[in-house]
Amino acid sequence: MCVMQTLIKECLKGVPPEVEVVARDEGLSPRQAARAITRGRITVAANPRRPHRLSAIGEGCRIKVNVNIGTSGERCDPALEIRKAQAALENGADTLMDLSTGGDLPAMRKAILALDVPVGTVPIYEAVRRAGNAAEVTSDLLFNVIREHCRQGVDFLTLHCGVNQAAFSALRLDPRVMGVVSRGGAFHVAMMAATGEENPLYSEYDYLLEILSEADVVASLGDGMRPGCLYDAERLAKVTEYVTLGGLAKRALAAGVQRFIEGPGHMPLDQVGYNVQMLKEVSDGAPLYLLGPLVTDVAPGYDHVVGAMGFAVAAMHGADFFCMVSPAEHLALPDIDDIVEGTRVAKITAHAGDIVRFGAGAHARADLKMAEARRRLNWEEQFKAAMYGEHARTIHERDGDLETCSMCGDLCAVKMVRDILGEREK
Amino acid sequence: MCVMQTLIKECLKGVPPEVEVVARDEGLSPRQAARAITRGRITVAANPRRPHRLSAIGEGCRIKVNVNIGTSGERCDPALEIRKAQAALENGADTLMDLSTGGDLPAMRKAILALDVPVGTVPIYEAVRRAGNAAEVTSDLLFNVIREHCRQGVDFLTLHCGVNQAAFSALRLDPRVMGVVSRGGAFHVAMMAATGEENPLYSEYDYLLEILSEADVVASLGDGMRPGCLYDAERLAKVTEYVTLGGLAKRALAAGVQRFIEGPGHMPLDQVGYNVQMLKEVSDGAPLYLLGPLVTDVAPGYDHVVGAMGFAVAAMHGADFFCMVSPAEHLALPDIDDIVEGTRVAKITAHAGDIVRFGAGAHARADLKMAEARRRLNWEEQFKAAMYGEHARTIHERDGDLETCSMCGDLCAVKMVRDILGEREK
Repeated sequence: MCVMQTLIKECLKGVPPEVEVVARDEGLSPRQAARAITRGRITVAANPRRPHRLSAIGEGCRIKVNVNIGTSGERCDPALEIRKAQAALENGADTLMDLSTGGDLPAMRKAILALDVPVGTVPIYEAVRRAGNAAEVTSDLLFNVIREHCRQGVDFLTLHCGVNQAAFSALRLDPRVMGVVSRGGAFHVAMMAATGEENPLYSEYDYLLEILSEADVVASLGDGMRPGCLYDAERLAKVTEYVTLGGLAKRALAAGVQRFIEGPGHMPLDQVGYNVQMLKEVSDGAPLYLLGPLVTDVAPGYDHVVGAMGFAVAAMHGADFFCMVSPAEHLALPDIDDIVEGTRVAKITAHAGDIVRFGAGAHARADLKMAEARRRLNWEEQFKAAMYGEHARTIHERDGDLETCSMCGDLCAVKMVRDILGEREK
Repeated sequence: MCVMQTLIKECLKGVPPEVEVVARDEGLSPRQAARAITRGRITVAANPRRPHRLSAIGEGCRIKVNVNIGTSGERCDPALEIRKAQAALENGADTLMDLSTGGDLPAMRKAILALDVPVGTVPIYEAVRRAGNAAEVTSDLLFNVIREHCRQGVDFLTLHCGVNQAAFSALRLDPRVMGVVSRGGAFHVAMMAATGEENPLYSEYDYLLEILSEADVVASLGDGMRPGCLYDAERLAKVTEYVTLGGLAKRALAAGVQRFIEGPGHMPLDQVGYNVQMLKEVSDGAPLYLLGPLVTDVAPGYDHVVGAMGFAVAAMHGADFFCMVSPAEHLALPDIDDIVEGTRVAKITAHAGDIVRFGAGAHARADLKMAEARRRLNWEEQFKAAMYGEHARTIHERDGDLETCSMCGDLCAVKMVRDILGEREK
């Protein structure tokens, strides 16, 4: 097998072209970006087999948004999933994950991989499909699927390496209402329960790292034990997995394999900050990919907003990468409208986080542009400055073509005080 | 004029019946609630002229949500505004404010006051309407309107007492892009600019307190200087007004007049916490009523979500009362759908905040109920446990009547691990 150089190893010697590109995008110096990659603080998922638009994730980079698409056994329409993927990209998704479990999985993946975006997958899903059920999945089968995904051009793989016997014991010692809500996590629990053996992704982690190193594919260290409800947030399985993932992140870096860490899950607002800090601590500041956090369980249909609240606090504490939550979360496979709404809300949250991350930089300047347009009551400029301007235009124009807006009309405060104070003095 | 006892004064002597009611609602002891009212930590807006459902706001109480309705010159359909008010109440609004500026203002107010809910108004709007423009408003006219609102049964009045010459100077010393975005604030600036005199609500504050004390009506100390964009958040006008409002809150309490403080506005996520703390500090922990905070300027059409992020952080730091932000904010007068969406999102945020405020209390138990229903895959129970269950049902049922959901189908993680671990051990 031809042993390739991983991006980390190339960065130890100089600045590879991929890093030049992402450094420019992020406003970092190329050497600074390369150094952050070698220290495992920035991850660039870029399978060398498949050139595409790049997205750097981590320290000093804009917060990125992933959108999940994919068929299920109950709703399997590959063409629809591709349209969803396109809708996600049109609304600003930085990466896509194909979570398909229904239909022709390699064909579905091929179609997603034809898009110009970093793509992630969860190999255990396909291993279970092929074996018939989780209990029948062998380590050989799983590693073969992982190799196939790497060869096909997938950029990052969610690998539930932390769902090990220690986490399983914690789950029994300190029971949770929702058990396991990660589909991949549940598959690994089922494998361990059936065989009594260790999760091969954990026991054969060095071998896994060899595969990933050879293919230069990124490990997304999966949070199979993420809490599925507020009550479960303080149970031991979660932190047991944190500690494991931290150690695995260090081992990956030492092996020259790029990785990020997946984080929870459901938890109250006031736990989000320290959970982010804890994950950053155990992993030496590895890029953090958040699923949630969902800060209440009782708002199905509005979980995109519930996620925005959790993301916002997580962003303040250093989270780097958000997995979009759609309004259909907990209820159904999202449709295109759900994908659009969820992607927009996640991107808006990421922007609000970037304002904190970068202070009075480029992101704050985008907001200042909007303020200036509002001061001038220039609607066209406002729609241009808006993240989703056509949506804003639709709302504004439903009451006709007004200089002010139908909220205050002639009693517009901005207009009144602008006339008193005159043009802005500075 | 018949001098009535204010609720604060009654609480100094015992526990009035209104306080018995709200204490029961909030799970507080009646004496504890009465004491918190006398210390100005809880406000109960309950105009004695108009009995209605009560809502306590402040320390130890659930976070409450206000919804603004009202006509404008450009869109004046009183029947529609009443339907909006009803939609807000059906979705959980705790209070309403009538911000009408178009049409027959007393008639509109009468219709809102017929609803079973605490109602707030902004008397300066009507004063300006009657005078023709802000520069013509006299202090006599303004105080007359205030008295009329009190007599008509309004429970709380937004009074921009902090928009004084000091704030006006700060505005000139440290200019802002958006100037003044509070409509009431702008009116007072216009009055001061025209006359060169002090804002009568500030210079004649003792007289104002007499009126409010006689009527036992609550002062909502308005934040006329709230920043209207992220850039303006760090300008001096905002904190100048904070300091003034803190002093006025103390004077109101000393006069036996209940009050809460209105807070900003637009600001980055990481400024929300200390702004809330600062407002609580200067006002000796007065209940805090937040307009926003909006944590980015560039998401018109999604400002309900932007508000949810700001509210979430504010809730963690002690904010008590949220003013709903609708998706039409900055663009148009909200329609019924906007009111429904904005009210739901605000109520969900308030619930997420209550979970932090009350720890493992009643609010966390509501979430646990949902988790238990999810574990059992009992959809009817889930819809019952959900804040907006019929909306959730619509999404779930679009793919037919499934035991699991169309997201994972047979590969439901919860089902899988539940079968492995057996029923919950505790």
